Amino acid sequence: MSRWEPNARGRLAQASLELYIERGFEQTTVAEIAQRAGLTERTFFRYFVDKREVLFWGASTLQELLVTVVAEAPTTATPIEAIATALESAGAFLGENRAHSQVRQRVIDANTELKERELIKLATLAAAMADALRQRGVKDPTASLAAEVGIAVFRIAFDQWVHGTGDSDLAHLMRESLTELKAVTAGD
Amino acid sequence: MSRWEPNARGRLAQASLELYIERGFEQTTVAEIAQRAGLTERTFFRYFVDKREVLFWGASTLQELLVTVVAEAPTTATPIEAIATALESAGAFLGENRAHSQVRQRVIDANTELKERELIKLATLAAAMADALRQRGVKDPTASLAAEVGIAVFRIAFDQWVHGTGDSDLAHLMRESLTELKAVTAGD
Repeated sequence: MSRWEPNARGRLAQASLELYIERGFEQTTVAEIAQRAGLTERTFFRYFVDKREVLFWGASTLQELLVTVVAEAPTTATPIEAIATALESAGAFLGENRAHSQVRQRVIDANTELKERELIKLATLAAAMADALRQRGVKDPTASLAAEVGIAVFRIAFDQWVHGTGDSDLAHLMRESLTELKAVTAGD
Repeated sequence: MSRWEPNARGRLAQASLELYIERGFEQTTVAEIAQRAGLTERTFFRYFVDKREVLFWGASTLQELLVTVVAEAPTTATPIEAIATALESAGAFLGENRAHSQVRQRVIDANTELKERELIKLATLAAAMADALRQRGVKDPTASLAAEVGIAVFRIAFDQWVHGTGDSDLAHLMRESLTELKAVTAGD
């Protein structure tokens, strides 16, 4: 029963996104996803807890990336420099497949519960980065502020990128958004 | 049946908080809240949609305050100055009853769903402030960045205040947190 299926996760993810767009997230069942992917429901549940997780399973990888880059930034880096480096790495990592990110975003934008889940994911990422800064010896509120501001920059750059306005290089948009932030906060 | 009850909303809110602390939010029923307040369930539902709303009904007043202050800031104010003024007003408004805010926060901190609801409330406030800035002619991403950063400052100052560390003047903490933010973002 547990025969190996080539790229089962990828096929299930692809089938899910197609169906979420065609029928809506709420209306799609796991049975339909499995059928579209040519796999069984049992195989689906080997990879994903539920149909929502298909949209969010990448979050833990992203969190690990952000935390590792903050932890490994040079000891001379200021908190905002460590965050900036993490954002660029996230931009390079997420920026590889814009078409896929755009489809995922269309699904999320169409569903209040999914939009809320995305907000919670971002808040979790901010908390993880703040922890990583504290482990570098950065005190609060500096650690929290730098991390929260980093996530604000992340969100706004990602939003511009995924909605197709402007630059198609996400890492570059992250840098620009941070530069803009510095101008905004200095503006008094 | 609809006889007037003096300060029914306040009595229901007080009874709710007491029970949420004593028994937990999940375990408390509307019937118990009404009984503790010496009122009927019907009266409860005249003021609140559900038991969660008792904790969040102030959000729309707060949003109106933030939006109005941003809209009415002098035309010469930069985006971050308009946001700073709004945060100070929010600090003065919310800072009046620290004991009540602390009890409310204990209830929220003990429940994942309520913590998520609080995050969503803050994101909604950020979106409303960004809109208010756009109506002043501020372009994106500046409007979004200034508003998001404002909410980060708000959250961190409120967190310090409600958890009782440091200063007991919320408006003052908002100013300090914004000053700290400026130092953090300039730190490169």
